[in-house]
Amino acid sequence: MTTKNIPPDWAFEFHGHRCPFMPIGYRMGKLAMEYLKVEREQDHGFFVFPEIGEGHPQTCMVDGIQAATGATYGKVLMEKTFFGKLAATFHHPHKGAVRFSLKPEFMDAMGKFEFFVYRKKGVEPSQIPLPVVEEVIKWTYEQTDDFMFKIEAKPDFKFAPVKGSFNKAKCSLCGEYVFERYVRTKDGNPVCIPCSGYKR
Amino acid sequence: MTTKNIPPDWAFEFHGHRCPFMPIGYRMGKLAMEYLKVEREQDHGFFVFPEIGEGHPQTCMVDGIQAATGATYGKVLMEKTFFGKLAATFHHPHKGAVRFSLKPEFMDAMGKFEFFVYRKKGVEPSQIPLPVVEEVIKWTYEQTDDFMFKIEAKPDFKFAPVKGSFNKAKCSLCGEYVFERYVRTKDGNPVCIPCSGYKR
Repeated sequence: MTTKNIPPDWAFEFHGHRCPFMPIGYRMGKLAMEYLKVEREQDHGFFVFPEIGEGHPQTCMVDGIQAATGATYGKVLMEKTFFGKLAATFHHPHKGAVRFSLKPEFMDAMGKFEFFVYRKKGVEPSQIPLPVVEEVIKWTYEQTDDFMFKIEAKPDFKFAPVKGSFNKAKCSLCGEYVFERYVRTKDGNPVCIPCSGYKR
Repeated sequence: MTTKNIPPDWAFEFHGHRCPFMPIGYRMGKLAMEYLKVEREQDHGFFVFPEIGEGHPQTCMVDGIQAATGATYGKVLMEKTFFGKLAATFHHPHKGAVRFSLKPEFMDAMGKFEFFVYRKKGVEPSQIPLPVVEEVIKWTYEQTDDFMFKIEAKPDFKFAPVKGSFNKAKCSLCGEYVFERYVRTKDGNPVCIPCSGYKR
């Protein structure tokens, strides 16, 4: 068995290096879209909440999810929850929500590959010998979806994106434009957050 | 004059639609890399802090920055500041930092294009007639860097990414793995944040 959900070359180019986690995220994204019966998001209608945080490895998964789903950080469709888990909830307002997570047994089996010996020594992915990298990528392609992913329907998941506005004002101190939601007031004048001295 | 910093086709595919802001971000990213003399980031060594927030338009810029720089959200190299401004600070630990922002005059001139009549009516980018979209993209390609971008050296900019660890534990309630930084304790047992009932 080899998965059909292998990332296109451009997804690796976007990501910057070859590693197993970008493809795992890509596959998770494709399976979640299939589950919810949604197409790749062209505009602003599909949301993903990856549970990764900072200061831990394997976050590369999230670039694969962006590549597969089109629910990108730039389109304000993706936000990490900072739970430190290799999981994500996928939400479409009209199609519902589903959570995918990596099964511990899969993570344990994958953790035995030489790739992680290098990573734990602090060697960056682009500097690991290519055969070592390709070995673990190929192995993941050969695993079944069922061995890799736990899938949970989330019928009660609620999310409403904030209402958008094109309104903006010029900061009275730096002269730069600020979108209205972020305009603050100081000495009676409109200012941006950095000029205001306020934290947010 | 036409800029050399036009995004490759895959950057549009990644982004999901054609619009002027993804290319503007791509160009901003390429110019910032040139300014700092850094190559596209393969691994985890170049950081970008876009000043956009939520509930406002033109955030698409950030997907262009990801595509240009390789400082992706998935590699934990990018974090929005939520200032509601079309600007970003680019930081390389050994090369320094620079802030690029869109000049108000440029934003005013661009705002006159028909593309924004559609956007303000709520028409999604993929649904706007292609000639209307291409008109404004082409116009941005023809503008000079100087007309578009304000550039500020940031010699005092400080940022230190958190120290990473591969350590993880199984949540005693759901059985899923959690990276150590996010393990919490409840009734004396290790738990993940969602099972803990704590907010973070």
